[in-house]
Amino acid sequence: MIRYPFQIEKNKENKLKTPSQSYKNRGLSLESMINDTNKYYKFIDKALIYKKPTPIHIVKIDKENRISDAFFEKPSTTDYNGIYKGKYIDFEAKETKSKTSFALKNIHSNQIKHLLMVDEMGGIAFIIVSFTALDKIFIYFIKDFKKYIDNNDRSSIPLDEFIKNGREITPSIYPVLDYLSFVDEFIMNI
Amino acid sequence: MIRYPFQIEKNKENKLKTPSQSYKNRGLSLESMINDTNKYYKFIDKALIYKKPTPIHIVKIDKENRISDAFFEKPSTTDYNGIYKGKYIDFEAKETKSKTSFALKNIHSNQIKHLLMVDEMGGIAFIIVSFTALDKIFIYFIKDFKKYIDNNDRSSIPLDEFIKNGREITPSIYPVLDYLSFVDEFIMNI
Repeated sequence: MIRYPFQIEKNKENKLKTPSQSYKNRGLSLESMINDTNKYYKFIDKALIYKKPTPIHIVKIDKENRISDAFFEKPSTTDYNGIYKGKYIDFEAKETKSKTSFALKNIHSNQIKHLLMVDEMGGIAFIIVSFTALDKIFIYFIKDFKKYIDNNDRSSIPLDEFIKNGREITPSIYPVLDYLSFVDEFIMNI
Repeated sequence: MIRYPFQIEKNKENKLKTPSQSYKNRGLSLESMINDTNKYYKFIDKALIYKKPTPIHIVKIDKENRISDAFFEKPSTTDYNGIYKGKYIDFEAKETKSKTSFALKNIHSNQIKHLLMVDEMGGIAFIIVSFTALDKIFIYFIKDFKKYIDNNDRSSIPLDEFIKNGREITPSIYPVLDYLSFVDEFIMNI
């Protein structure tokens, strides 16, 4: 079995773990799965996609450049962006406990605006939503969101819409969440 | 005269200021000039390019979600990225006081690696270097850097190389630093 550098980590039983084991055994967060996936994509030279650092407003820096007072800022863009097949990729990832819908209040309105602008400019924009209580993860492109929101309620996206127009991402081994396979499909259809 | 929303700021004399005035009068930092330029590009729907937040490792969060202990992390990517004409743009901006060369120790080696990878993947990667003592700002594409570094000293890039293979960006009014005009030129030649 091939061990990639980013997987050489040990679990509590002191055994080497892989992302898939972690996912099954410990209920890895959506963020961890996406980060593992992006490391894998980078490792195989497929794509370069990073999570942006959380925006923090620094109030006070002590001696030795240590931050002693700061607070979280409202993000103006999404969490993830990067390059795949020369194209600009941009997305936001969110978990919801709901079994029926994804409430839009879970995403800042300026993040939605940002994704709509990326789409207008020819980039590939989407959200990844994990329905944790259902153990289902979907990729949903902003182009579909635009169509949906023009004709429907603006406070949430029902699960049915994800099933109908999104694509379910089934966690696997390498990579954990192969969302770029759906980006390939998307590129072929535009 | 048109006043854009992001320019409605006042200087010490309580007069409305423009980016160009700021640059001339106060010696605006390269970062401020780039940020103003990016706001302008966004305002006219030309490009979406953002500065990533500084990566910070949070040690302690107090009540009310306030950060009371944290430190700066080494960046794994560059400061700026985004989308222009559907393409992925990625760059780093640095100032140097030197009058003769730009020392590569000013950029983290993983940032240089990142820019080389972006170039390999078909993205548009470059650095913007301001020689503050000379009042000259250059855009220098990673494709030229690759050619240069294969045949030369690996510790610095001499000013002559920027003059020969880079392009000088002359600060102007709207936008302050029109670096995308050189990206257009670059796109035409690839």
